[in-house]
Amino acid sequence: MKLGLNLSFAIKRWLGGDAMAHIVKDELGLDIVQFTWDLVDPWWPAEKRDPIAREYAAAFRRAGITIESTFGGLASYTYNHLLGPTPELRALGKEHLKRAIDMTSEMEVRAAGMPFGSFSSADALDPSRREAIYKEAVETYVDISRYAKEKGLETLYVEPVPLATEFPSSATDALRLMKDLNAQTAIPVRLMVDWGHALFTPLFGEQADMDYWMKTCGEYIGAFHIQQSDGLLDRHWNFTRDGIITPERLAEFWKRHKLADQTYFMEIIYPFEETDEHVLADMKASVALLRQAA
Amino acid sequence: MKLGLNLSFAIKRWLGGDAMAHIVKDELGLDIVQFTWDLVDPWWPAEKRDPIAREYAAAFRRAGITIESTFGGLASYTYNHLLGPTPELRALGKEHLKRAIDMTSEMEVRAAGMPFGSFSSADALDPSRREAIYKEAVETYVDISRYAKEKGLETLYVEPVPLATEFPSSATDALRLMKDLNAQTAIPVRLMVDWGHALFTPLFGEQADMDYWMKTCGEYIGAFHIQQSDGLLDRHWNFTRDGIITPERLAEFWKRHKLADQTYFMEIIYPFEETDEHVLADMKASVALLRQAA
Repeated sequence: MKLGLNLSFAIKRWLGGDAMAHIVKDELGLDIVQFTWDLVDPWWPAEKRDPIAREYAAAFRRAGITIESTFGGLASYTYNHLLGPTPELRALGKEHLKRAIDMTSEMEVRAAGMPFGSFSSADALDPSRREAIYKEAVETYVDISRYAKEKGLETLYVEPVPLATEFPSSATDALRLMKDLNAQTAIPVRLMVDWGHALFTPLFGEQADMDYWMKTCGEYIGAFHIQQSDGLLDRHWNFTRDGIITPERLAEFWKRHKLADQTYFMEIIYPFEETDEHVLADMKASVALLRQAA
Repeated sequence: MKLGLNLSFAIKRWLGGDAMAHIVKDELGLDIVQFTWDLVDPWWPAEKRDPIAREYAAAFRRAGITIESTFGGLASYTYNHLLGPTPELRALGKEHLKRAIDMTSEMEVRAAGMPFGSFSSADALDPSRREAIYKEAVETYVDISRYAKEKGLETLYVEPVPLATEFPSSATDALRLMKDLNAQTAIPVRLMVDWGHALFTPLFGEQADMDYWMKTCGEYIGAFHIQQSDGLLDRHWNFTRDGIITPERLAEFWKRHKLADQTYFMEIIYPFEETDEHVLADMKASVALLRQAA
């Protein structure tokens, strides 16, 4: 298994390039990361934001750590973005992603991504509003892809989410979006599929099945988020906890589908009130379990 | 009990002034709210942000809903702000709060607040770094209070949090901060005490006791966040769930301390993947339980 680390586990705790590189490389023994916008907010003024972002990138480079992509986290996911209910909110969604692309480019990282967007409660129940907003969002995203290409990015990622009020959630929705986008975008758009989202049984029932996802839209899956879950909520637990996504299951899937490049990014989200000592010890234990199963 | 509603329960779901006012007033029967920055990000460009924020305020006014304060939510809490490890991050923390004050002023709301800030893991363990950063943050906050006064605000709030790596967490820390600030600030600074934070036993042990908080720093408590919790993590559950903070306990405390103005703001945070139908039904049931106990 090609193991990578989404840095969400570290937010507010280990800050600055050297401190973070030490945790990733020396403490956890990993050298591929996905940089979360929860460490550097794309909305910060560019002249203050970019030196902070570049300092992470430089320290990671010195330590031999590859940043495969940058990705939206908790703060970004709080807002509706491209599927918001008003033109003003959707325009802010576009600006948000463009600013994240600017930051990614400044870090000399070649890929960025986030979920696509969230409908309001009212729009989610109105098929014609959903369709109209979706079509506008696809056009907007095509525009954004041209901007990303100008900025030197090579791939954009969309992450499906386990909510019927957002898009895409199901594997068939994800396939539709990938076809609609890749027919027009200036650079490839790929799926970042989260195991805990795909296996969310309250929404997907019998289709909460990663083999079904591979069959439906596997050709577009660029990488994965891995997390432990009970399948009942989007837990983002670590693999030290019992649940339905064991290291053995991940390893068996990896081998059977002959995966090679599609990094398994651990995306572990701790309650803010967990101690730093617990987080670090737990991350180490989990990496050991994943290594053992690989 | 003077019951109010922090709007965190509604984020991404009911957007826009009229939709939100309908939920607050007609569905839940409440008329006091705390507006969360998770609905309108203080970092959005002012010329786009302020019309959206003003539209909420105008719709609430028409519906007879009072916005007592605006407050930081999930997105804001993702970053370290005034206690961050570098001058650059701390300056961004200052700018963040000033932008939130701008937005609050545009809404013609008279109070705003958030937690004070988070130390990095390394700084949290270094008493002299903690003290130096704390002192600088107090000076910065005094500056911010002058700015808030110019903008027409009458009160700023600080929310203690259940983490030893942040400040203030304990009641005695909160008292120290209140004394240090109120000796110098241009407008009063008060505590927004969250029941689930104050009763967090892993950190506070026997001092996880609201009477102890009242005795220690009660004179500075301007209002409360209420939530259900098991005392083991910062749950922000609703009162439809069993836990240690029952509506009866809240009512008994309210009466015994002869509270009058210190609004109990329900701050209920749902997993994003809960359905809108469940959230609304659950909020209604919880308001009914609180009304019954009052």
